[in-house]
Formats: sequence, C-alpha cells, structure tokens
Amino acid sequence: MLHARPHEMLPAPGDAVAHLSTPRPLIDEDRMRANITRVQAYADQHGLAFRPHIKTHKLPSVAQLQVEAGAKGINCQKITEAEVFADAGFGDILITFNILGAEKLARLAALNDRIEKLSVVADSLVTLEGLAVHFSNRKPLIVLVECDTGAGRCGVQTPQEALTLARFINGSSSLTFGGLLTYPKPGAAAEVQAWLAEALALLESAGIACPVVSHAGTPSLFEGHNVPAATEYRAGTYVYNDRSMIRAGHCTEADCAMTILATVVSRPAPGRAVIDAGVKTLTSDLLGFSDYGMVVGFPEAVIKALSEEHGVIDISACNDTFPDIGGKIHVIPNHTCVVTNMFDTMVFHRDGVVTRVEDVAARGLVW
Amino acid sequence: MLHARPHEMLPAPGDAVAHLSTPRPLIDEDRMRANITRVQAYADQHGLAFRPHIKTHKLPSVAQLQVEAGAKGINCQKITEAEVFADAGFGDILITFNILGAEKLARLAALNDRIEKLSVVADSLVTLEGLAVHFSNRKPLIVLVECDTGAGRCGVQTPQEALTLARFINGSSSLTFGGLLTYPKPGAAAEVQAWLAEALALLESAGIACPVVSHAGTPSLFEGHNVPAATEYRAGTYVYNDRSMIRAGHCTEADCAMTILATVVSRPAPGRAVIDAGVKTLTSDLLGFSDYGMVVGFPEAVIKALSEEHGVIDISACNDTFPDIGGKIHVIPNHTCVVTNMFDTMVFHRDGVVTRVEDVAARGLVW
Repeated sequence: MLHARPHEMLPAPGDAVAHLSTPRPLIDEDRMRANITRVQAYADQHGLAFRPHIKTHKLPSVAQLQVEAGAKGINCQKITEAEVFADAGFGDILITFNILGAEKLARLAALNDRIEKLSVVADSLVTLEGLAVHFSNRKPLIVLVECDTGAGRCGVQTPQEALTLARFINGSSSLTFGGLLTYPKPGAAAEVQAWLAEALALLESAGIACPVVSHAGTPSLFEGHNVPAATEYRAGTYVYNDRSMIRAGHCTEADCAMTILATVVSRPAPGRAVIDAGVKTLTSDLLGFSDYGMVVGFPEAVIKALSEEHGVIDISACNDTFPDIGGKIHVIPNHTCVVTNMFDTMVFHRDGVVTRVEDVAARGLVW
Repeated sequence: MLHARPHEMLPAPGDAVAHLSTPRPLIDEDRMRANITRVQAYADQHGLAFRPHIKTHKLPSVAQLQVEAGAKGINCQKITEAEVFADAGFGDILITFNILGAEKLARLAALNDRIEKLSVVADSLVTLEGLAVHFSNRKPLIVLVECDTGAGRCGVQTPQEALTLARFINGSSSLTFGGLLTYPKPGAAAEVQAWLAEALALLESAGIACPVVSHAGTPSLFEGHNVPAATEYRAGTYVYNDRSMIRAGHCTEADCAMTILATVVSRPAPGRAVIDAGVKTLTSDLLGFSDYGMVVGFPEAVIKALSEEHGVIDISACNDTFPDIGGKIHVIPNHTCVVTNMFDTMVFHRDGVVTRVEDVAARGLVW
C-alpha cells in the first residue's frame, strides 16, 4: 500500500516516463539489478560478506533484491530506518551509529527483542556504558567497535583504544563483542589494512575473538580485497550510482540507475535554460563538483545554480539541440542517496515504461 | 490530525525540548511571531501589500498567522503546495512558477475554479500559449509577467519583452494580466527600480493597466521601499530566519526562530565533536559560508563536514565547555527553508517547552 500524501500524484505501471510530470526521480530497474549483481559477485569472489546500506534507497523491496543476490544482512544509519526494515522481515540489521539517550535505548531494546540479529557500533566508553546499563537483564546486544582508520569522522583513534572498548564489551554481560568496523577514507587501503591488522593482533593477544571486521564505502568498493583484514563490506550508493561514483571510477554513466526527470521551464536568455529541479530535488551536495548534476546527453551543460525549485543551466557550450521550453531532460545527480531522501515515492521503470511506484518507506523519519 | 509515518516518534505539548530525541528541528513560537509582526509592520509602513512565501514553513497554521497579521495572500512555488493551502482555506494564492504540461495545467484549472484568486507567472510565449489554450472557456487565469531584473534566473530580459507578454495576456480571453513580478538580485534596488519603471512606462504608453508590481526576497526586505515601483512584497525566509539572514543584516541571532537540536555522539579526538545532524538534517546548502551552520553559544565551533547523518565539528577554537558525548547543542542552519523540507513534522516551543507539533503539510510533494 502506498502512503502518499493527499496531493501526491502518482504515476502508474505502464505509464511512459516521458509523459510524467516533473521533477521526478526515476530508477532504471535493469541498471539497478545489474549493479546489485555486479557488486555481490565481487564480494563473493573475494570471500567478503556483503551488507548493503539501505540509506541509498530506503526501500525494503530493493533490500530484498540485495539479500536475494547474496547479501548477508543490511546496514541502517538510524533506529527508525531499522524498524521499517524489521517490519518488512529483515532479521540481520547493523546500525552504524552511536546510540545515546533514554528514548533511543528503549527503541533499540525493543528492536533487539524482535529480530534475530541486531548490531550497533560504539566508539566511546560513554556510549558503551549507556548500552551496558540499558541492556542488563535483556537479550544481549551485539556491539562492534568503530575505528577511525583515517576518515576523520567517528571511531577510536588507535588500535589500543579499540582493544580497550572490546575488553569492556567482552566484560559486560549485557553486550556481545561483534567485531571491528570502519568507514574508511577512500583510496587508503594500505593504511586501513595496517590499522585493522594491528587491532586484530592486539585482540588476539588479549584472547578476544573478533568475529567480524567490517569495511565500507562505494567509491573504493572494487579495491575492497586490498584490505584482507576485512571479512565484511558495507556499501550503499552502488545500488543506484551517481556522478560522484563515475568520477571515482566505480561505474560508468550507463550504470547510473537514478535519473531525475525535469522540464525546461524557461529559456530566458541565450545560453541559459531553467529547469524545475532545484535544491529541493537535486540537493546542494557538490561532493567536490562545481555544479549540481550531469545532464544526460548534454555533457557540456552546466547546472550552475540552484534555488529551491529552479535549476539554472548554462547551455552556452551545448549545441543547439538542447530542449526548448516544455522539453524534458534527465539529470544524473551528484549524490543519489540525498535525492532519495527528498521524495515520498520512487518511480521505477524499464526502457522508459513505469514498472512500479514505491513508498520511500524509511524516508523522513526523525532518528 | 497528524499524518506521521508509522515510526515517527512525536513529542507532545508540555515536553521539555531539552529531553527530545535528536536530530530535531524546532521553532521558537515567540521569535516566529515577532518576525511576522516586524515584517508586516515594515510593509504596512511603506504601503506595500505583503505576500509571504510558504516555502519556508509549508504549514497552513503559520500562513494563518501571517494573514492575521495583515498579509494579503500567500505565495507558493508548486501547484501541490497551493492545493494544500487551498484545502486549508486560503483564497488568494500566487504560484511563482511557469506552469507547463497537460497534467499540471489540469490541476491548475481545478485549483483556479475552487479558490477566489489564483495567479501564476509566465516569462515566455510558449508558457502563455499553453495557459491560454487550456483556460479557454474556463474561469480566466491571472498571469503576471516575470521579469529578470538582474538575478539571472527566470524572467523576460527587457521591459520591451515584458510589454510583449503583457499584450499577449491582455489580448487573450482566457487570461487576465495580473502585473509584473521579479525575484531580484539582493542589494540592487536602483537597478530593479529602473527596470520596473521602464516597463511600467511602456505598459502605460500601450494603455495596459498594471494592477500589481511584485518585488521579493528576505535579504533586502527592509530595503524594499527603495523600489517605489513595487506595490507588493513577497518573502519567505524572514518567518524563521537563519544564518544567511544574519549575515545579510536582515536579523540578529535572537531573531532566528529555527534551531536544530542535535546530540554530540562522539568526541573521538581532541578538537573534534561529531553530532547526529548531517546532510539529511542540515542539508549541504552553504549559501556562501564555508561550513554548515552556527552552533548556538559556541561561535568558534566550525561544522566543517557533513555526511548523511553525521556532522563533524571542529571545536579546537572553543573553550572546554563544549558538550561532551550525550550533550545537546542547538544549530542555526545556513538556510532554514531547506531544513523544513527534510522533516515530516515540525515541533514548536516556547521557552524550551513544546507548544505544538505540526505536520509539514506541504512537504515532500512532487510538483
């Protein structure tokens, strides 16, 4: 059942994509399925358990395809996302976030009771103590130690600290040590491997078994085998791909499953086209680019400015085939995951014909 | 009635804001009401009809406060937004967008039939011809000519073109000429005035009455009287204000009604704090800043990087009172309008106590 808002106008299977009102993000079914197959094959080839991050699609039906292809579980970033996927029947969920606060701990415990295997991460004794207290006299919670192997976000800074936290987890009757986890700096396989190997050696010396070493990130996914310490790989973006993944060498334009259909609403001056996709569609994620997306078929077009519902495109370097007012274009976004987050529904198509429309079930949840 | 999703956990009136789970955008009722009063007083003082843009809040209850304060109607950017506000009883709605395509035209006509006064804009004969054909033998549609007075987005490029389009509208039995409209470059009052005055002179020479000249933008709102050609002013951001409006000199920090409550989830290294608000909360709108928001009470803190659900803050220049893990902060976003667009519900408070929770009724609609 679709939970569209009262004024949501939904396409239907069989509709021609070209006739849809815009702006509208679209997913090419075949490209998406090929991405799922290709990445799973890579993980299988290298003996890596694969755990897709659902942040990119927020759709149980897509996660189901990922699991059918061989994924061993899923990765969520928020408790509320995990609850949606638990409702849909997923039984192995890793939440890669420090969980703090009474309300979140209560929801986490309820979730732990109703699925087979819930795991979270922690990178401090403060977080661990909160978990240990809340989960005492409950089904134990699996906790992985998050390691900052160079990305500069969360994570313990040294293998020695990882050991300290692993010891705490191992010593708590409320918690089960789930292993080590990192969200690495892309392209730094050697450093990541060195860090993790050192931590594994410390754990081994301390007699602590490490069941999982979880490595991640779509950009350097196909270099994942260069971190042999890892037993598991997490990735989200690969399922749809985007302009940043083309630049990273992870995929080609033909692997980008998400495009945003937009209409040219104005051609006010020579060299300028304005589309009906702005920040509230494409988002302002630049990811190192200097413009806001790539117009399919018009590589010289520069989406140079966005306001909330308008995108201004410099078409002065294009030939004169750029669509006129009322014409439509497809944009490959810089970052697909954040576009998913803007819309309540997602339209899937095959060869330009709508195959299905899905609620973005885990979108818009607070935490 | 709230249309929260199944896993939305909603605060209730009387709850202490400090105890809410995070991330959570909050609106200070008193600051918001003071912003509404101050801006309406300015418009009244200068004889400008005031038309708030609802993109910032997307909430009929807030628009109602704006109308009660003296606003003469509202401004929407999308048909679906306008439909939500029509349902809520608003009878004077201006949609500042070129409407193209069969489905949108049909929805526009239905909307025109059910509210007292619907207006749209157009900046090309293509758009006007579409409107003229669709509205023949219907209640006529009011159309303003959008003028590019220097902002470089949509709009006719010259006063002469404005006259051409006004003539077309005036000559169509389906359409009614509603006047001229501009979304100006901030701080360019003299140019805007010159442009509009020239267009008005041309219209007068042609014997075409111009009922409205609509000017806009929060940043230079209090300079609105420097464009005496204008009869109406549109603004959205002023209702909540944000960091970009402080920089523009439009308001002070004490006028910022929206803050995002976030929790410090990690202090992995000296000088680094990580919060649970990332791109999917604060958005990546920089608006000329080099970081992603302003931490209330910690002006030296730099929100230097966002990932989807994490914000990395450089606190090395702060004194050591910055909250530790589990502590909460309030962030004033760079751009308030885009934060509204990220959440299904908005929490209002007074002096830190929740007053009400509202569905962001016009959020997430496709077009």
